[in-house]
Amino acid sequence: MTPSLPAPHLTLAVCDYPEHVPRDRWTRYAEQQKALGLSFVRIAEFAWSRMEPRPGEYEWAWLDEAIEAYADAGLKVVLCTPTATPPAWLIRAHPEILPYDREGRIREFGSRRHYDFASPIFREHSRRITRVLAERYGQHPAVVGWQTDNEFGCHDTARSYGGASAAAFPGWLEAKYGTLDALNEAWGNVFWSMEYGDWAQIRLPNLLVTEVNPSHLLDFYRFASDTVASFQAEQVAILRLGSPGRFITHNFMIFETGFDHYDVAKGLDFVSWDNYPTGMLEFFSSWMPDEIKTDYARTGHPDLIAFNHDLYRGLLKRPFWVMEQQCGQVNWAPFNPLPAPGAVQLWTAQAWAHGADTVSYFRWRAATMAQEVMHSGLLRHDETLDRGGLEVESQDLTAMPLGSVPARVALLHDYESLWLYDVQKHAASLSYWAQTVTYYRALRGLGQDVDIVHPDSDLSGYALIVAPALTLMTPERAAHLEAAAQHARVVFGPRSAYRTVSGRTPEDGQPGVLAELLGAKLLNFDSLRPGLSVRVEGPDHACDVQSWAESYRLTGAETLYRYVDGPQSGEAAVIRKGSVTVIGAHSEELLRAVLAGELRAAGLSPEQLPEGVRLSRRAGHTLLQNWTSQTVNLHGRELAPVSFALEAQA
Amino acid sequence: MTPSLPAPHLTLAVCDYPEHVPRDRWTRYAEQQKALGLSFVRIAEFAWSRMEPRPGEYEWAWLDEAIEAYADAGLKVVLCTPTATPPAWLIRAHPEILPYDREGRIREFGSRRHYDFASPIFREHSRRITRVLAERYGQHPAVVGWQTDNEFGCHDTARSYGGASAAAFPGWLEAKYGTLDALNEAWGNVFWSMEYGDWAQIRLPNLLVTEVNPSHLLDFYRFASDTVASFQAEQVAILRLGSPGRFITHNFMIFETGFDHYDVAKGLDFVSWDNYPTGMLEFFSSWMPDEIKTDYARTGHPDLIAFNHDLYRGLLKRPFWVMEQQCGQVNWAPFNPLPAPGAVQLWTAQAWAHGADTVSYFRWRAATMAQEVMHSGLLRHDETLDRGGLEVESQDLTAMPLGSVPARVALLHDYESLWLYDVQKHAASLSYWAQTVTYYRALRGLGQDVDIVHPDSDLSGYALIVAPALTLMTPERAAHLEAAAQHARVVFGPRSAYRTVSGRTPEDGQPGVLAELLGAKLLNFDSLRPGLSVRVEGPDHACDVQSWAESYRLTGAETLYRYVDGPQSGEAAVIRKGSVTVIGAHSEELLRAVLAGELRAAGLSPEQLPEGVRLSRRAGHTLLQNWTSQTVNLHGRELAPVSFALEAQA
Amino acid sequence: MTPSLPAPHLTLAVCDYPEHVPRDRWTRYAEQQKALGLSFVRIAEFAWSRMEPRPGEYEWAWLDEAIEAYADAGLKVVLCTPTATPPAWLIRAHPEILPYDREGRIREFGSRRHYDFASPIFREHSRRITRVLAERYGQHPAVVGWQTDNEFGCHDTARSYGGASAAAFPGWLEAKYGTLDALNEAWGNVFWSMEYGDWAQIRLPNLLVTEVNPSHLLDFYRFASDTVASFQAEQVAILRLGSPGRFITHNFMIFETGFDHYDVAKGLDFVSWDNYPTGMLEFFSSWMPDEIKTDYARTGHPDLIAFNHDLYRGLLKRPFWVMEQQCGQVNWAPFNPLPAPGAVQLWTAQAWAHGADTVSYFRWRAATMAQEVMHSGLLRHDETLDRGGLEVESQDLTAMPLGSVPARVALLHDYESLWLYDVQKHAASLSYWAQTVTYYRALRGLGQDVDIVHPDSDLSGYALIVAPALTLMTPERAAHLEAAAQHARVVFGPRSAYRTVSGRTPEDGQPGVLAELLGAKLLNFDSLRPGLSVRVEGPDHACDVQSWAESYRLTGAETLYRYVDGPQSGEAAVIRKGSVTVIGAHSEELLRAVLAGELRAAGLSPEQLPEGVRLSRRAGHTLLQNWTSQTVNLHGRELAPVSFALEAQA
Repeated sequence: MTPSLPAPHLTLAVCDYPEHVPRDRWTRYAEQQKALGLSFVRIAEFAWSRMEPRPGEYEWAWLDEAIEAYADAGLKVVLCTPTATPPAWLIRAHPEILPYDREGRIREFGSRRHYDFASPIFREHSRRITRVLAERYGQHPAVVGWQTDNEFGCHDTARSYGGASAAAFPGWLEAKYGTLDALNEAWGNVFWSMEYGDWAQIRLPNLLVTEVNPSHLLDFYRFASDTVASFQAEQVAILRLGSPGRFITHNFMIFETGFDHYDVAKGLDFVSWDNYPTGMLEFFSSWMPDEIKTDYARTGHPDLIAFNHDLYRGLLKRPFWVMEQQCGQVNWAPFNPLPAPGAVQLWTAQAWAHGADTVSYFRWRAATMAQEVMHSGLLRHDETLDRGGLEVESQDLTAMPLGSVPARVALLHDYESLWLYDVQKHAASLSYWAQTVTYYRALRGLGQDVDIVHPDSDLSGYALIVAPALTLMTPERAAHLEAAAQHARVVFGPRSAYRTVSGRTPEDGQPGVLAELLGAKLLNFDSLRPGLSVRVEGPDHACDVQSWAESYRLTGAETLYRYVDGPQSGEAAVIRKGSVTVIGAHSEELLRAVLAGELRAAGLSPEQLPEGVRLSRRAGHTLLQNWTSQTVNLHGRELAPVSFALEAQA
Repeated sequence: MTPSLPAPHLTLAVCDYPEHVPRDRWTRYAEQQKALGLSFVRIAEFAWSRMEPRPGEYEWAWLDEAIEAYADAGLKVVLCTPTATPPAWLIRAHPEILPYDREGRIREFGSRRHYDFASPIFREHSRRITRVLAERYGQHPAVVGWQTDNEFGCHDTARSYGGASAAAFPGWLEAKYGTLDALNEAWGNVFWSMEYGDWAQIRLPNLLVTEVNPSHLLDFYRFASDTVASFQAEQVAILRLGSPGRFITHNFMIFETGFDHYDVAKGLDFVSWDNYPTGMLEFFSSWMPDEIKTDYARTGHPDLIAFNHDLYRGLLKRPFWVMEQQCGQVNWAPFNPLPAPGAVQLWTAQAWAHGADTVSYFRWRAATMAQEVMHSGLLRHDETLDRGGLEVESQDLTAMPLGSVPARVALLHDYESLWLYDVQKHAASLSYWAQTVTYYRALRGLGQDVDIVHPDSDLSGYALIVAPALTLMTPERAAHLEAAAQHARVVFGPRSAYRTVSGRTPEDGQPGVLAELLGAKLLNFDSLRPGLSVRVEGPDHACDVQSWAESYRLTGAETLYRYVDGPQSGEAAVIRKGSVTVIGAHSEELLRAVLAGELRAAGLSPEQLPEGVRLSRRAGHTLLQNWTSQTVNLHGRELAPVSFALEAQA
Repeated sequence: MTPSLPAPHLTLAVCDYPEHVPRDRWTRYAEQQKALGLSFVRIAEFAWSRMEPRPGEYEWAWLDEAIEAYADAGLKVVLCTPTATPPAWLIRAHPEILPYDREGRIREFGSRRHYDFASPIFREHSRRITRVLAERYGQHPAVVGWQTDNEFGCHDTARSYGGASAAAFPGWLEAKYGTLDALNEAWGNVFWSMEYGDWAQIRLPNLLVTEVNPSHLLDFYRFASDTVASFQAEQVAILRLGSPGRFITHNFMIFETGFDHYDVAKGLDFVSWDNYPTGMLEFFSSWMPDEIKTDYARTGHPDLIAFNHDLYRGLLKRPFWVMEQQCGQVNWAPFNPLPAPGAVQLWTAQAWAHGADTVSYFRWRAATMAQEVMHSGLLRHDETLDRGGLEVESQDLTAMPLGSVPARVALLHDYESLWLYDVQKHAASLSYWAQTVTYYRALRGLGQDVDIVHPDSDLSGYALIVAPALTLMTPERAAHLEAAAQHARVVFGPRSAYRTVSGRTPEDGQPGVLAELLGAKLLNFDSLRPGLSVRVEGPDHACDVQSWAESYRLTGAETLYRYVDGPQSGEAAVIRKGSVTVIGAHSEELLRAVLAGELRAAGLSPEQLPEGVRLSRRAGHTLLQNWTSQTVNLHGRELAPVSFALEAQA
């Protein structure tokens, strides 16, 4: 549970920037915030240049005063380490802090996140500023918790393609592999004479003549992920020492893939993430069809949002915070529509139902300067309460008690599988997220609560385990899944176990160590361009398949669906061995049919929900949600457009 | 008026390149030019390597002889400074002259415009070559005027993202702001700890990790614009001294946005511009729908061309020259169709009607070498008269007397507003030009002549003033517009007064200092992706709105149109206070309706013209134009496809 | 004929990589290969790091043993120089070997083809490794031939835009032109003051401010092509000395344009190429419409494949090898579908019918490591025989005797014309390949066998000569074509003879030296955007024209088709003078009509074939091919989907 929770139900917060407004606003704003029902403010994540305007010269008076104003109004403060925006004096004194982009160019000072996580000099300054902050505010009674940095990886910043990262990568590899023979073998470097004879010969996998070796990429991504994790761990260690009893969290980003979030979440008290539903659909979901982007332009898509909620709840298997919650329009997508009336309340309620203990709106007053002047806040530029602010004002928080999400379905997710999948998509219309989210959407369309969890984590509580795209397989993971299949139904999607831990394929063919559990070997896979489809037929159902179609040679499994045309005609498309099912063909319709059957077999009750209508359960309540622009009837209730209702769980 | 005008009516000219053809052609060509009815030739804008083949070694014989040939045939010569193409010896001796692109790469020698306007060394050579040219030809009787350089800004060359510009920018800022505190405040640098503690810390706003600070960008654009202006001013000063009594002009480019044209036009005698109607539509008008690009492929779009005419006439509020007039097909667009029969005459007549005193065709003979061999001229490669040449031959110039354009409608345009708008479009389907041209098209579709003028210029003569996208507002500008609203109807479009002079938003919310005049405060703005629209309803008319929809809280204004669906349902979309109307929703249909009403209210007579039919008035005549491929009837006359007629003005 | 041919009919081979699998597989695989009916293996083209793991330290034991295993099984070995993948130790010791991309960035080690052909250091190492290989294996009884390097030019590697190439280019120019005056004149450098005063001033034509001078580009492309040719010539000379009696070939790539293949083929015994039908359509044929890409996704398009066969047969006018033949799915296109059942046999038979003496499948076992793990082989990862392997097993090779292709139609192709065409397309929807392949498709759709040959080669045997896009014309070439027109019908396409040998236009206009033969001068050309078309009308046929329409002033020719609308209405579109026809308008329908007439006039018998049905003739047999997914009837036979039949030639 979140430390320092002020209430047994959902609480609200806001991101505020006292340094952006005149001092005469501080007390007034804090009182308004309290009056609006907010409990926390998150501050200072970009304020390094105000904390330390010149090297080693600290200015705390403004921050002291601002925190005092919040405290006086009865608000609790979440303070941030300001390392997402190292100031100009630091960058110009040490330009080697700057990161490189994929094209080999230095990414310049002038916006944010302009640092290489591997930079020893930046590490030193990160520890220093964290230490002085912890010393000054670590035991301040109003300061209840910390956020490390801000949105690791945003703007493709988890990886730097040069400089400090390039210098550190060979050493990381040597520490991992010990010998170059081991590395050359693991990467299959014999393939194009890519074998190394000296650690110093190894560079980062960018600006190559043609395709990258996926094993090279995989280890670079692991290196970068480790570097993010150790960067944060340094801050966490300092904060633990200097600020006992306070929570530490980090605000992760929508569908971010630059590092292994399970690793980076370790050591935090709970996870936070930043929820921007309309920007998520417009900007972060390239695989969603244009038509859906238009239909859900004003609410975002319920399953994309829910996916992120469940993903972040699953990192530590613990309730979480939404540290930044869209409450108006964003400014960073190609189109930034106004949310539908009711959307802010619906987003808040959904966040609660998926396990958020606190929802913190971004931001208090719309910024009057710089990059985000077109982004709204709870207050307009003119300090009147904006549309979102009015919705916040009228929320009933006591109806949303804290507690657990009673998911009996686990969806397995793994960043290494994602990296391997996406570096060699083979069918440009699919990706790891596209495939994984399709499974997730099918489950939610069947009325299920879902935990998104790591494949190697404890799976004992689940009745159905779905592994949509578990590309990377190890013997240990296979054994773990075999054990899970003793008590649960297990469903695998296409490309399961295509790769070993080093990114090669199994020497005995796919699915390698998983073959026994699946009762099958991979026969072929087919990559389908738009307009090209194949058809599958099962016991009482047939449908078309898009993008991907793989087939199996059975060694124990039985065939559920079979291809009835195309080059794999007659071959098995969906197979089952005991409690384990493999779906080799990509089709939303097929997925819904097979998963509905699996849910029933698992003793769960699938409920086919209409488009845009969703159910989420928490703490004995069911949240009925209508994300459409029409009134709908659900469970005997009439739900207005973009609205929700709560019912006691059966 | 243009100095040295040889006639009281439209005159013609041609761009010629004696250095591209054998000497035996010079006399023959000049005589042919004269026989075709041409009065001027423009020469030598790319001839530096022939004037000065080696450092300090000048060769004038060829140019003497060429000018003599023109003079002998009775042609007047417009001579150019050749600075658009510094020769190889200069660049290799001083590679620091080369500019940088946005990606931070040096832009190499090998085509044209390969210099940084801020380069002190290039400035020195620019002054030197200008001086020797002025000394040699400044008082030559055949030389009647000068063109500075060629097409400033073309190929995105107004700004260099490195080198000399990077070195000069901090000094320019220091001169402007005096203190870093002032700069940090103006730019809102506190936002992401972007505050500077030393002028030398400031770089150009490219290659950043994510979005640029719009204030940083705005000042960089101003710096670049000032640099272009001072570069030209140096040449102008030298020419004034060395070539008294001759005119000085510059040939500006279609929709060019790299600098403030009002500033750069200062000090010229008149403005010229380069009119390529088909390339303009295909290449320079990304916002025009594909269907229109096809329909007008062979003529260009009448309103795009007219917009540029009126824009360039408005820079100095004076008749202008078309220095390069397409007379066949161009070579630089993705598609380069042949013009329709009649198009060259129609373009020429339209230019006249919009205030051109001289139209100069590009070029005499199609080039037989290098980059533009696929571009046509009045002569083909084989020296026969090409299709355009035949049209030029049969033009009746005496029907086109010089005189003024009797516009009672002013359209306000401002490059700083453009820069601020386009750096944060918020709706990817709109832009400053797209929005502004939509207003312009509506006015021309209503039969109006329009002056495009700077918002801070004298507005006393106008009955209707339209400000489609005046993003940047200052107290002085607001006062000026208030004064104008005393005698004229004023119409504002969306995003009016969104920004202050430094690119921030007003601290009291939009429209800041304009609130009193508009009688309203901004409530919200809505950014609409394709497929998403909202509906507005007025007294006797309703229609759909695309791309943009903003609403107002009224503080004196009344509502004309209201949103009837979407999140702003019920809010004001079009408002009026006295003589001032604000149109907050983007819709061609809505614009036409509101502007028609405003024209009537202003005592002007809107005339709804059919698609592709246009009227333009000058010197007591109305030019009736048919840009379509069908015959049309207009004012009792039958106009053949792609043709025009002149009628005496009522 | 190919040396060392083991049989009078088509033979098969496979690309194998003993270094990728454990040693215990070598004998087993070789025996399986032999049992499958294969005669040759090609090996070692990427094995440098295994041959020479450290500078100067060679390891031959593995290669000795591998070759022995093949020999023991009765297979012949084709050995490769491994220069396509210089090892890490060489690159890190001499980073100046690395090439530069068009953006001026170094292309890094980590995949393949990471070298600049102009690098003197790399040349030295190329000669050295070739020499030691030739010394060790040049006279090995199992080694019957050599492949130089691998796929010259693949991944845009024929040209390096910096480094060694930049250093060598001025010297190449000096050797060619002697004086800078000659170069400046040839390139037309006066155009934009691009004249050079020193050889060292000349750089490569990339990263320019705007369009490149096509003459500059043309010479750079020639330089790069010469450099590829001389690089290979060095290896060939060494192999000739060290490995007498063995053949030397190179495996060229699909539609590769980075060098003049006629030059680079000189000195080889025969040409090979790498045939990937599905990847060719999806990845290498950007001009093919999406609908065709979908229809032929599982077979590739017959005419694209055939075009490459005929192109590579024509380089040396000799039978060839397919050195890499797709036998399953590829991994490098956006979509990589499974081939249709029967496709591998159809591809093999088609290759034979177009002149392949040997077809070598890529590859034996699917790779279990690195970049190509998603690419199939004859064996799956799990070592079972894959779908393609099964098709190979059941082929009847004895039905496919060696012999000549009886083409009476020549299609003229020239890389310099291609370079000039594509640098200034003028209509973005056309390109040299798109235009040329349209002519080729029309001929094959009329049942014709076609030789694709160089315009300057011996044309004596042909009844019809088609020059679809012979942009570059010289007096010698014109004379050669005039001679050919004495005995054959000759057809020219649009843009014929637009350019001289240096890339300028003829001073007397197009078609310059060809005017006499064509009986016409070019009047105008028209570039048509999608949606814009014009209509032509001939004696008994009319149709629409897309993308390109040019017209002529007749000086001896007569008009066959005339434009009946658009700006060229009334002008000649298709003309004929004696045996010479010029088709100035781009239209598949028009082409088919005119070419059918020309075939009849040439005494050949056009046979209109249905879509996807093709005929190819070799050695007295006709191969009837059905590339569609329906059964078709042809010549009284029923052809199943994706199948073929052989009939004795009439």
